Amino acid sequence: FLSVTKMATDDYVGFTFFVGCMAMLAASVFFFLSMSSFDKKWRTSLLVSGLITFIAAVHYFYMRDYWAAFEESPTFFRYIDWVLTVPLMCVEFYLILKVAGAKKSLMWRLIFLSVVMLVTGYIGEAIDPANAQIWGLASGIAYFVIVYDIWLGTAKKLAVAAGGEVLKAHKALCWFVLVGWAIYPIGYMAGTPGWYDGIFGGWDLNIIYNIGDAINKIGFGLVVYNLAVQSTTSAA
Amino acid sequence: FLSVTKMATDDYVGFTFFVGCMAMLAASVFFFLSMSSFDKKWRTSLLVSGLITFIAAVHYFYMRDYWAAFEESPTFFRYIDWVLTVPLMCVEFYLILKVAGAKKSLMWRLIFLSVVMLVTGYIGEAIDPANAQIWGLASGIAYFVIVYDIWLGTAKKLAVAAGGEVLKAHKALCWFVLVGWAIYPIGYMAGTPGWYDGIFGGWDLNIIYNIGDAINKIGFGLVVYNLAVQSTTSAA
Ligand SMILES: CC1=C(/C=C/C(C)=C/C=C/C(C)=C/C=O)C(C)(C)CCC1
Ligand SMILES: CC1=C(/C=C/C(C)=C/C=C/C(C)=C/C=O)C(C)(C)CCC1
Repeated sequence: FLSVTKMATDDYVGFTFFVGCMAMLAASVFFFLSMSSFDKKWRTSLLVSGLITFIAAVHYFYMRDYWAAFEESPTFFRYIDWVLTVPLMCVEFYLILKVAGAKKSLMWRLIFLSVVMLVTGYIGEAIDPANAQIWGLASGIAYFVIVYDIWLGTAKKLAVAAGGEVLKAHKALCWFVLVGWAIYPIGYMAGTPGWYDGIFGGWDLNIIYNIGDAINKIGFGLVVYNLAVQSTTSAA
Repeated sequence: FLSVTKMATDDYVGFTFFVGCMAMLAASVFFFLSMSSFDKKWRTSLLVSGLITFIAAVHYFYMRDYWAAFEESPTFFRYIDWVLTVPLMCVEFYLILKVAGAKKSLMWRLIFLSVVMLVTGYIGEAIDPANAQIWGLASGIAYFVIVYDIWLGTAKKLAVAAGGEVLKAHKALCWFVLVGWAIYPIGYMAGTPGWYDGIFGGWDLNIIYNIGDAINKIGFGLVVYNLAVQSTTSAA
C-alpha cells in the first residue's frame, strides 16, 4: 500500500501539484512512445521533450509530497528540476536549428545563461532573501540576454535561414520564452520581499510556478511534436 | 506518498546527490531510447552506456537518502556502484575497439586492473583509513597501468588501426580516464588522513565524487552516443 494522506478539498496548491505530476508523467509517455512514428531526425528532439517532462514528473512527486507533509514551498526540488530542464530546453533550440547549421557554441551559451539565471534566482529565493530584489535583477538580466539571443541574435538568423516549419517552430518557442517564462519572475516576486510586495503580495508562489511549468514544459514539447508532424506530412 | 524529509537550502552535498540522481536517470532514459535510432553495431555500446548511468541512478537514490538520513558518507554504496560501473566502462573500450579486432583479453585485463584499483581504494577509505596513504598508492598504481594501457598500450594500437571516428572516440575516452577519473583521487585525499591534509583538508569528499560521477558516467556515454551519431551520418 501507498501511504496516502487526506487532502483538504480546498488545498489548491496541493491540487496543482497533483495535476502537474500526472500531466508531466502522461506527457512523457506521450513523447517517448510517439518517437518511433517519426523520421529519425526528429526523434532526438522528441526524446528531449520527453526527458524534460519526465524529470519534471519525478520532481513533482517529491514536491507534491513535500507540500502535503509540511505545507511549505519545496524550493529545493523546484530549482533542482529547473537546473536540469531549462538547459535541456536550450538543447532543444539547438536541435531544431541544427538542420540550419547551428553550432554547439550557441547551445553552450544558452545553457550558461540559463544556469546563471537559475543560480542567482535560487540565491535570492532560498539563501539570501533579504536581497531578493538584487538577485532577481541579476537573474532577470540573464533572462533578457536569452530572450535577445533567440529573438534577434544568432538563433534567429539560423531559424530564418532554415525557413519553413523550422522557422515557425522556432518562433513558437520564442513566444514561450518571452511570455511563458515570464510567469516565473511573477512567482518569484510573490514569494520574496521587495518593492513589488504591494502588487503580488497575497499570491501563492507555488500555484504560479506550477502553472508556468505546465505551460512551458508540456507546451514546449508539443511545439516540437507539431514540428515533427508537419515536416513528416509535408515530406510525404 | 513518499516519506520526504526537509532539506536545508544550503545542503550542497544533498543538492549534488539530488541533481546527480535525476541526471543519471534522465541519461539512462536517453541512452536506452536512442538505441533504436542507430545502426545495430552501436546498439550494444549505447545499451552499456545506459546501464552505467542506470546503475548509478539506483545507487544515487540510496546515497541521497542515506545522506539525508544520517549526514554521513555513503561509502558502502559508492563503492558498490563503482565496482559495477567501472568494469562496464572497460567493456565499453572493448566494444568500441572490437571493429578493429580487439581481443577479450584486453577487456579482462582492464576489468581486473579496475577491480584492484577499487578494492584497494575501499580498504583505504573504509576499513583501514589509518593506512589510507598506502592503499591509495596501490590503487593509484593500478589506475596508472590502466591509463598506460589505453593511452600507449594495446588499446591505443587498435584505435589507430581502426582510425576515423573510432580513433576520435577512443581519444576522447582516454581523456576522460586521464582527467575525469583523476577527480576521484582528489576526493579520496579530501576524505582520508595523509600527507595531503594541508591541501585538500577542508573539501567535501562527496561533492567531489558526485561531480566526478556526473562528468565521467554521463560524459563517457555521450562520447559513445556521439560516435554512433557521427558514424551513422557519415555512412549515409
Ligand atoms: C527571470 C527570473 C527568474 C526566471 C526563471 C525562469 C525563466 C525559469 C524558467 C523555468 C522553466 C522554463 C522551467 C520549465 O521547465 C527567477 C529564477 C524566478 C528569479 C527571478 C528572475
Ligand atoms: C586512483 C585512486 C582512486 C581512483 C578511483 C577512480 C578512478 C574511480 C573511478 C570511478 C568511476 C569512473 C566511476 C564512474 O562511473 C580511489 C579508489 C579513489 C582511491 C585513491 C586512488
